[in-house]
Amino acid sequence: MTAVSGPVSEALAELPLVDHHCHGAVTADLTGGEFASLITEGEAWPGVSPFDSPVGVAVRRHCAPLLDLPRHAPPADYVARRAELGWREVNRRFLTAAGAEVFCVDTGYAPHPVTSPAELGRAAGAAACEVVRLERIAEAVAARGVEADGYAAAFRGAAEEAVRRPGVVAVKSVAAYRTGFAFDPAPPTGAEVTEAAAGWLTRGGRLADPVLVRHLLWTAVELGLPLQLHTGFGDADVTLHRADPALLTDWLRLTSGTVPVLLLHCWPYHRQAAYLSAVFAHVHLDVGLALHYTGPARCRAVLEEALEITPFRKLLYSSDAYGVAEFHHLGALSFRRGLAALLQARVDADELSLADALRIAAWAGRDNARRLYGPPVSEPARDPSGRPTRKV
Amino acid sequence: MTAVSGPVSEALAELPLVDHHCHGAVTADLTGGEFASLITEGEAWPGVSPFDSPVGVAVRRHCAPLLDLPRHAPPADYVARRAELGWREVNRRFLTAAGAEVFCVDTGYAPHPVTSPAELGRAAGAAACEVVRLERIAEAVAARGVEADGYAAAFRGAAEEAVRRPGVVAVKSVAAYRTGFAFDPAPPTGAEVTEAAAGWLTRGGRLADPVLVRHLLWTAVELGLPLQLHTGFGDADVTLHRADPALLTDWLRLTSGTVPVLLLHCWPYHRQAAYLSAVFAHVHLDVGLALHYTGPARCRAVLEEALEITPFRKLLYSSDAYGVAEFHHLGALSFRRGLAALLQARVDADELSLADALRIAAWAGRDNARRLYGPPVSEPARDPSGRPTRKV
Amino acid sequence: MTAVSGPVSEALAELPLVDHHCHGAVTADLTGGEFASLITEGEAWPGVSPFDSPVGVAVRRHCAPLLDLPRHAPPADYVARRAELGWREVNRRFLTAAGAEVFCVDTGYAPHPVTSPAELGRAAGAAACEVVRLERIAEAVAARGVEADGYAAAFRGAAEEAVRRPGVVAVKSVAAYRTGFAFDPAPPTGAEVTEAAAGWLTRGGRLADPVLVRHLLWTAVELGLPLQLHTGFGDADVTLHRADPALLTDWLRLTSGTVPVLLLHCWPYHRQAAYLSAVFAHVHLDVGLALHYTGPARCRAVLEEALEITPFRKLLYSSDAYGVAEFHHLGALSFRRGLAALLQARVDADELSLADALRIAAWAGRDNARRLYGPPVSEPARDPSGRPTRKV
Repeated sequence: MTAVSGPVSEALAELPLVDHHCHGAVTADLTGGEFASLITEGEAWPGVSPFDSPVGVAVRRHCAPLLDLPRHAPPADYVARRAELGWREVNRRFLTAAGAEVFCVDTGYAPHPVTSPAELGRAAGAAACEVVRLERIAEAVAARGVEADGYAAAFRGAAEEAVRRPGVVAVKSVAAYRTGFAFDPAPPTGAEVTEAAAGWLTRGGRLADPVLVRHLLWTAVELGLPLQLHTGFGDADVTLHRADPALLTDWLRLTSGTVPVLLLHCWPYHRQAAYLSAVFAHVHLDVGLALHYTGPARCRAVLEEALEITPFRKLLYSSDAYGVAEFHHLGALSFRRGLAALLQARVDADELSLADALRIAAWAGRDNARRLYGPPVSEPARDPSGRPTRKV
Repeated sequence: MTAVSGPVSEALAELPLVDHHCHGAVTADLTGGEFASLITEGEAWPGVSPFDSPVGVAVRRHCAPLLDLPRHAPPADYVARRAELGWREVNRRFLTAAGAEVFCVDTGYAPHPVTSPAELGRAAGAAACEVVRLERIAEAVAARGVEADGYAAAFRGAAEEAVRRPGVVAVKSVAAYRTGFAFDPAPPTGAEVTEAAAGWLTRGGRLADPVLVRHLLWTAVELGLPLQLHTGFGDADVTLHRADPALLTDWLRLTSGTVPVLLLHCWPYHRQAAYLSAVFAHVHLDVGLALHYTGPARCRAVLEEALEITPFRKLLYSSDAYGVAEFHHLGALSFRRGLAALLQARVDADELSLADALRIAAWAGRDNARRLYGPPVSEPARDPSGRPTRKV
Repeated sequence: MTAVSGPVSEALAELPLVDHHCHGAVTADLTGGEFASLITEGEAWPGVSPFDSPVGVAVRRHCAPLLDLPRHAPPADYVARRAELGWREVNRRFLTAAGAEVFCVDTGYAPHPVTSPAELGRAAGAAACEVVRLERIAEAVAARGVEADGYAAAFRGAAEEAVRRPGVVAVKSVAAYRTGFAFDPAPPTGAEVTEAAAGWLTRGGRLADPVLVRHLLWTAVELGLPLQLHTGFGDADVTLHRADPALLTDWLRLTSGTVPVLLLHCWPYHRQAAYLSAVFAHVHLDVGLALHYTGPARCRAVLEEALEITPFRKLLYSSDAYGVAEFHHLGALSFRRGLAALLQARVDADELSLADALRIAAWAGRDNARRLYGPPVSEPARDPSGRPTRKV
């Protein structure tokens, strides 16, 4: 739980990470209430402060010092100091502290005004790439107006256009939220898609039709880019057990040999995700979101479980930070400390050689993402001064 | 695993607990076989002693000294000494050792002669409140005789009468046992209830009709008291995966903003329960039953998982002890030691301030229950001598 | 994680184990690619070495020294040395190092040329028994040709014949792979079996018809031998969540009081399996397969969870090793070290007496299997020289 010392810890502290899935940071000053609502995935708790939670404790412990406050600063002091510094400086401090060389930013969820990928990268002194959320593309197609029998082609065309934009490195689906994973794994027929589209285009609302969600996933496969899938932990809009990645097994069998599939978050089904990554060549995982929500106090334990059988080239790092840049920092800190503690203990027990531990650390924190996504993730642009990617 | 020392440990050792869900202790002397059958949730194991289990080991280690026996006393000695002391003295010793200021007693399950709440409180030198099990109310209504179209009103009336009794602080449902949680979350219509009641009143037996179980839960919401729900671990009558609290998600969405919901036990789905408590304002949890069955050796580990994302105002203490007063004691001991070890380690690692750790300890052990249930839980009556609630 | 020292550790290191479920070791020299494919449960990972995994690291750490290589030897050296020694010597070294007095060998899965039980026993200097895989019997009956209405009797006859062979101690089903466990728990009628058989005998392929799988399980119960069931973790052919042993609950209720049921592997549902073993007299479990795949680094953690509520007479040891004899050794090593660390820590914390710890170690490693299977497991034949079962 404490920051361990030793060569693995030092290597991970220095390693420029690839945060392969995150969101923007808010570009506005926040009231105490607004900040509090951004550090929980849940409803407001009447009479209960979101600071009184594992992530709230972690923010006060690990983020307060970056705002020049003492460790464990009271919430009121924290919020006041944050406002005093202003959102630009706050974002700059936490985003640079994250020590990532690349952020892959999901631009499809932004109920608040947040940084664009480029703005996030600039504030962090890092490169930024984009992850296209396919449900948003489909919903834009519907919003623009389309005939039911033209929906499939229009969605495919819009998705292709979206992923051709510079800097796009992956697509993402939130099928977990919309239908869960207990769906018919086969691709729907054209007629089925047209019929389902007719219903949805009449009803309106967000994309949650089971046929269209399956169609979206199969279209994703055809796009050829790595596919990120939300699994497990999320906000109150997810039904947890329907987001168990094990439910994807039949679909993973059918998509074997196609695009890389990245299971995001996974907690509390990270062992199920690990199993899938161990038996399917195209499956990878991370434990983002859980990294900052469980915090440094439990991050090693979650990683220990996730890594019980996961091949070492299959684990990636993501923060899944949204809204407050504290989370881009906390995710990175939890990951570095948790993985270092895990690996150093194995080295100390002579279960793992130091050379292997250092390779595994670099793979998980950076190289697996580079390998999977290729450029620009693997060759991030430097800033105009030619400054190398910063170290933390 | 060992009892840690330090200020958190001392504070938790002294803290008068609220055991917000337990049952009575047997009011009879027990043979060895009777005692053994009460320390397992399962069938008799031919040729296998229930003492050869984690809870059996914990009883011999932590309960034997309270009967003036050496630690790890042999089962035969234990049972003999228990009989020698007599059930009144045995109950008194363990119930006072539990160090609770209030016990909330589920009076709806008592296949053995057990203490009433008042008797339990007297033996413990503590206050006792009552939790009304709604299935028992419904079954009493059916047993008294009612027309199908009068069932809904009769049940509602009987439930209202039951919760008006002095000392009643909550209602409880064992829907987990009867249908599991994969039910239609919407309230049934009056016609549906009448039709289902007609079937049940003809068939007889316990309440297990899915429509009537849903009706019971929605009636519970209308009663306005906190609602305790059995989830996860129980005896052979539960089908574990159908008692996964994640299956309640849709129902929790519909009941958001109504009564507090207390997820009891939860193991091995305590992470799922934690998720629900983090995203729904009205959801709380405990890890009762698992506390004594896994024992002090694993209690910290279970609490660590349960607390990964649970807000600190959402965790409560219960023993779920039934039958043998050893369990009222063991639950409290496991909870105190497990939570102290968890919190003290975070303080030692500077992940948590001592002041925060002390607040969290008091919240989980007592104050969250006081806040949720109000009086008389929050203002337990003292005994006639005005003796303050005992310390342990 | 490190090998702990102390009396429990010494006792477990010396204990002749009963490996109550394993497979044969390959009787051929292996290329690097062939070896690599045998140390993963999954598909080939393009560009990724199976050595870069927890089990690969464990092989290099704990198996290399038995081939006279340094700890953490590079994969290429490992494979070269293995080829140099030849398969007979490799098998002999690892199988003797496993330190088992009896291996119970599932002979129903052998895509490679592997040792027979007798050959495995001879190479190990141990006794070997046989476990009959019932799906294979059923498929042989179908392959020989049978009328649909004669299938039930033919299968029953063939199974009875198979289990009468000397050395057969148990039957096994891979229903988890074929249909999963969410089946109708009741025995199918004769007419249903005939109808299902007619379909299967026409279609061909492996036995995966739900009615016939149920019929197979109920036939297993009638055979009267202990029944081993694959649950949880396996290769890409299993759908993990359908292999959750909790899904067996209704079937276990119906079979209560019949044959012992052995839940194999269980991970990541070992807590669910533990629950079943705690409430049903006939249910037992092991965490085979996970022992070598998670390796010594995580074996204690998995055992800690599995043992949270499992009665101590209900846990057995198996390696579930297949193909490479490294796994027969690694399973045993992980089990001895993991269980020793768990028990010794409890003794050190005075949660468990040393005498109890030693009993539990012997029960789990050997005596529970002896009790359950009886002779020849409980009275293994010695080799012709009368040499006692070797110690490790």
